[in-house]
Amino acid sequence: MRLTSETSSDGVREQHFTLDDVPGVLWTPEPAVGPRPVILMGHGGGQHKLAPGIVARALRFVTECGFAAVAVDVPGHGDRPKDEELDRIATQNRERVDAGADLAPLVAAFQARVARRTVPEWRAVLDAVQRLEHVGGEPVGYWGVSLGCGLGVPFVAAEPRVRAAVLGLGGGSVSADDARRIVVPVEFLLQWDDERIPREQGLALFDALGSEDKTLHANPGGHMAMPRLEVDSTVRFFARHLG
Amino acid sequence: MRLTSETSSDGVREQHFTLDDVPGVLWTPEPAVGPRPVILMGHGGGQHKLAPGIVARALRFVTECGFAAVAVDVPGHGDRPKDEELDRIATQNRERVDAGADLAPLVAAFQARVARRTVPEWRAVLDAVQRLEHVGGEPVGYWGVSLGCGLGVPFVAAEPRVRAAVLGLGGGSVSADDARRIVVPVEFLLQWDDERIPREQGLALFDALGSEDKTLHANPGGHMAMPRLEVDSTVRFFARHLG
Repeated sequence: MRLTSETSSDGVREQHFTLDDVPGVLWTPEPAVGPRPVILMGHGGGQHKLAPGIVARALRFVTECGFAAVAVDVPGHGDRPKDEELDRIATQNRERVDAGADLAPLVAAFQARVARRTVPEWRAVLDAVQRLEHVGGEPVGYWGVSLGCGLGVPFVAAEPRVRAAVLGLGGGSVSADDARRIVVPVEFLLQWDDERIPREQGLALFDALGSEDKTLHANPGGHMAMPRLEVDSTVRFFARHLG
Repeated sequence: MRLTSETSSDGVREQHFTLDDVPGVLWTPEPAVGPRPVILMGHGGGQHKLAPGIVARALRFVTECGFAAVAVDVPGHGDRPKDEELDRIATQNRERVDAGADLAPLVAAFQARVARRTVPEWRAVLDAVQRLEHVGGEPVGYWGVSLGCGLGVPFVAAEPRVRAAVLGLGGGSVSADDARRIVVPVEFLLQWDDERIPREQGLALFDALGSEDKTLHANPGGHMAMPRLEVDSTVRFFARHLG
């Protein structure tokens, strides 16, 4: 893990790093001494580790809960180079859909392929940040919606350090088998009029989660219209389960 | 409105009353001077105005928000006399179901009949308690699940003083037309494994609500297994909208 830059303001220390060519950012309280829970955050499709929705939540986890937060760029996103293999598959998929193929299974296969890279990358990021004295080996939370849910479900299913997760805006592209393997508390966010995720698929993914302690929060509006109140609820959720 | 008894403890004043033969209970902070929001609460089927779930929430509305709370017995419940007309219809319905009739439309018709009595009763209760100096004419909230949702939907639809409502554990027995007429903020509670309300019917009722500002909270478990955390959420919801 190589630190590339560091800034502090308003009680938050922001450290940029790369880990085996994966660029990431770590937020911690300033000053911070000793171990604390860390929340790993997965950004949405076309977004990156410093997308406004990621940063806004990370700052609240740090300032209101005293936690650490970490986000990295998904392959082909943010500061990562164009990914020729993923680009080629995406182009092929567009051609297949134009030729009449069903989009959903192609998206699911594509996302599963990306997850086979992000799951080990994110586990390595956890290994690295938990070796830092101001993060340490406390319980881990995961936050991710949309693509961050599609990649987050296999991650949370695979990573026993994760003790609580906020997921949502995901549906049929996510493996129900992975969902069933998740048994930690989950807050699941669904937009009732999501133009990208059919409502039934979002409800089915919530249903598939193996967790006994899971809550669905559904609000009117489209994919990008999640109400601000849900951020408050997310902060309370992690404070309750990791604090 | 005739006050029949009054007690105070732990900062809460509890006044029992009757209004045209409807027995009720009013909770307010002690001491309380001047107007405050009031939350009218509708109890569940087979329950009454002092059921544990009613009292526990009322005490929190009073002590944490400084609001008033009021609950009355539904016809045929609590301290009200046996209701021969309702009993007769209930008996007829059981006979019809035994003879092969579909239960759902009978329950819906029965509940609509009860609501034709409770809506005017509850409006009269609001009139009466809002004339009290320590309640006054501030905005009103409504809380009711199960039967309290079935009777609450037509009440909230009809009563413009209600500015926010917590509803839930209701489904096909509730008029979708009434639900569409509700436009105030609603927090809607659904039990994912409700053995009495088919999941699709609960989701359809949430969908039918006319409110732009509505949130569905769904949790695993049966009709009676709503998690305690939802009470916290209810308190925050009313504090936000009426406080």
